[in-house]
Parts: sequence; C-alpha cells; structure tokens
Amino acid sequence: MSKSAGDPAATGGTGGEPKLSRASVQRFSLYLRLLERWSQEGLTVVSSSQLGEALAVNDAQVRKDLAYLGSLGQPGIGYYTRELITALRHRLGVDRTWSAIVVGAGNLSRALLRYRGFAEQGFQFTALFDADPQKIGQVVEGLPVQSPAKIPEILAATKAELAVLAVPAESAQHVADMLVAAGIRGILNFAPVMLKLPAHVSLIAVDLAVQLEQLAFLVHLSQQE
Amino acid sequence: MSKSAGDPAATGGTGGEPKLSRASVQRFSLYLRLLERWSQEGLTVVSSSQLGEALAVNDAQVRKDLAYLGSLGQPGIGYYTRELITALRHRLGVDRTWSAIVVGAGNLSRALLRYRGFAEQGFQFTALFDADPQKIGQVVEGLPVQSPAKIPEILAATKAELAVLAVPAESAQHVADMLVAAGIRGILNFAPVMLKLPAHVSLIAVDLAVQLEQLAFLVHLSQQE
Repeated sequence: MSKSAGDPAATGGTGGEPKLSRASVQRFSLYLRLLERWSQEGLTVVSSSQLGEALAVNDAQVRKDLAYLGSLGQPGIGYYTRELITALRHRLGVDRTWSAIVVGAGNLSRALLRYRGFAEQGFQFTALFDADPQKIGQVVEGLPVQSPAKIPEILAATKAELAVLAVPAESAQHVADMLVAAGIRGILNFAPVMLKLPAHVSLIAVDLAVQLEQLAFLVHLSQQE
Repeated sequence: MSKSAGDPAATGGTGGEPKLSRASVQRFSLYLRLLERWSQEGLTVVSSSQLGEALAVNDAQVRKDLAYLGSLGQPGIGYYTRELITALRHRLGVDRTWSAIVVGAGNLSRALLRYRGFAEQGFQFTALFDADPQKIGQVVEGLPVQSPAKIPEILAATKAELAVLAVPAESAQHVADMLVAAGIRGILNFAPVMLKLPAHVSLIAVDLAVQLEQLAFLVHLSQQE
C-alpha cells in the first residue's frame, strides 16, 4: 500500500480501493468511541442516522465512511455494533497493543498518564523521561522519571513505537532527533514548535494555543453574523 | 456575514468573497505562529515558499490562503512580515483580548494556565472553577479555585466569552449546560465526550486519546507500505 503525498492519512489503494481522507480517519476514531460506549450500554444494532446525529455528520457521509470498512451494513437493519467496532479497530490499527513513551514529566504528561482511556484503546505507557535532575527518580503514575540519555536503551527494551513529546519548545527538536535516532516510528507533539522529522516517522501535532485561537475565530465569526 | 452549514469554519462571503475552509483557518494559526517567531528574529519580508517549506504546504496553497487576507503580496518581493501578522490577527479575531475561564483544576488545566503563549496571543484566563471542595480556595497559577455555583456571577463580572472544559467525562455536559445558561460563547472541550450545545455556542473538541489513535493509524499505515 502506498501513501499519497500531501495528505498524511490518505491511503493509496491496492486494487483500486478509494482513498480515505484525513477527516474520515478522524471520524473513524469518533465512531469507535461512540460505538464502544453504546455497546457497553447494551446497543447491538446501530443505524447511520444514529451515528450521524450524535456526531453532527449527515447520514450519507457516515455510510460513505463506513463503506471503507467493507460491506457491513444490513439493509433495513443497520450495522451490528460489535462487528462495526471490530472493523474500525482493525482499520485504525488499534486491535493490538501499542507501547508508548512520554518525554517531559510536567502537568500535561501527568494528565495524559492519569487518563484511563488510553489503556482501554490498547495504548500502554511504558517509560517516562525528563531532563530535570530534580525530577529524575520521582515516580509519576507508576512510572519512574528517567534521564533522556536512557532513551535508546529503554526504547530497545520496551519496543515502544510511539512517543508523546511534552517538553518546552526550545528542546523539542533536539529530543525529537534523539527519538528518531533511537528508532521511534511516531511522535505526538504538544510542544508549540513545528518539528522536522524524516519521512518514515509519523507526526501528529497538538498545539493548545492554536486550538484556543480556532475557537476564538469561530466566536468572532458568529459575532459578525 | 453568514456561516455555511456543515463546516463550522466556513465563512459565507459578503459580495462574493470565496469560502474559507476549516483547513485554511488552521493554517492561518500556523502561519501566524511562524511569522511572529520570524519577526522576532528580525525577518521583515517573507515569501510564500518560505512559509510553505516550514509548514510542508505547497506554495500555491500558501498564496491561495493568503489571498483571503486581501492583496498583500508584492510581486518579486514577497510579503511584509508585520503587515501579514496584522492581517492574520485581524482575520482570526485575535487582534483583541479574549477573557477565558477554566473549569476543572486538574493537571491539564495547570499545564494550560502555565503556558505563557496564551497571554501573547491575547488570551487572559480570568477564573478557575472546580467542584471538589478540597480544591476550592487553593490558588493555581495565580487564580483561586472557585465553586462552579459561582459561574454565572463570575462570567457576568469578567465578561468571559470562552471556557476551557477540563473535567471528567461524566460531568462535562452538565458543566457545559451551566456555561451556556450563563452566556458563554465558545467552549474548548478536553473531556472525552461529545457535547451537545446550542447553535450560537461554538465548540472545539480536543480528545487526547483520539490524537494518539490517529498517530497509531499513521504508523500502522506506514508499516503496510
């Protein structure tokens, strides 16, 4: 399978499979979250309009998204919740366990490590690093804080493929370079800086100030109406 | 100006102005961040290819995005950095001060309140709330933790239009309803739950587990290549 340039989430098809947009992949995560909750509540069958209504997406888009998973819907019945969950988890690659490390032992990392949802989704945080000598040796949510000098050794031992980067902007690129050299495959970056990574390393950036700015823009727009 | 249905960031034009996609608006925030850094470093003129290269966006897209701001580029010269910053800040609605409150005094809120970037962008956090009686009265980053019962009173006093919601999933909708009743205009939601809000209240949702899942998907895809 080849990845198309310009859209990191686009999947080139084998055998003419249509491309998947980044927005569809984001919705896959949201469908999955919703279906898991509904399944726990006892719902065994779900319709595209139920999913669409809960996520403010129109029916046709939901059906189009779910068609990427194969022929799962039953006309006049809907989708079997468990079947859809299995297909979504498989498509997203979360029907397995992912080992992840965290660099930066600040408040954001504590919030992340404390959040139970990750374990349910198959994400295991296996090591925590911080350059601050005063933090090294402390235990945060069950993980001892270790020196970044140990990243290569620990990455080899834990087989971690993902890293969460929650360090100050000034040190983010340096730490990212260390992670790349140690063989990391993907970085979730919270530092407010644009990282330069080689093509074989995936990147998702979450800049909290950008999110607040986007919200202000929406409010600003609505006030002009 | 009217907002088009289906895309919360789309701007209907006055006088045939073309629509702005959500992706363009996200890039506006990133251009602005970059230009402010470059401006501090002394750069007075910038080209679309410099911006494009730094953000891994092609030149033509950068020029198309910036054309929404008016005729700012000078052929053969580029864009004046300060002029572009002013235009972006105006377009995004961040050429003014926004008062924001935070609900939930956990680690994520501490990380947000500690982040200096918000003040630079004109965001002022004016109040902090938490329902935990043990936290009420504590001072976090200069803000006393107050009971959510005080939200209506404080919102009226601070004229806060934005709220950051960093509370457990179980209480998120209830708190959101209180904020709406008290007159909030926009919510940045970190709780892993889909909020139902009236149409006049804007919403940006950041689900950290979804972000990690998206990263896993990208790595999963690249491993199939």
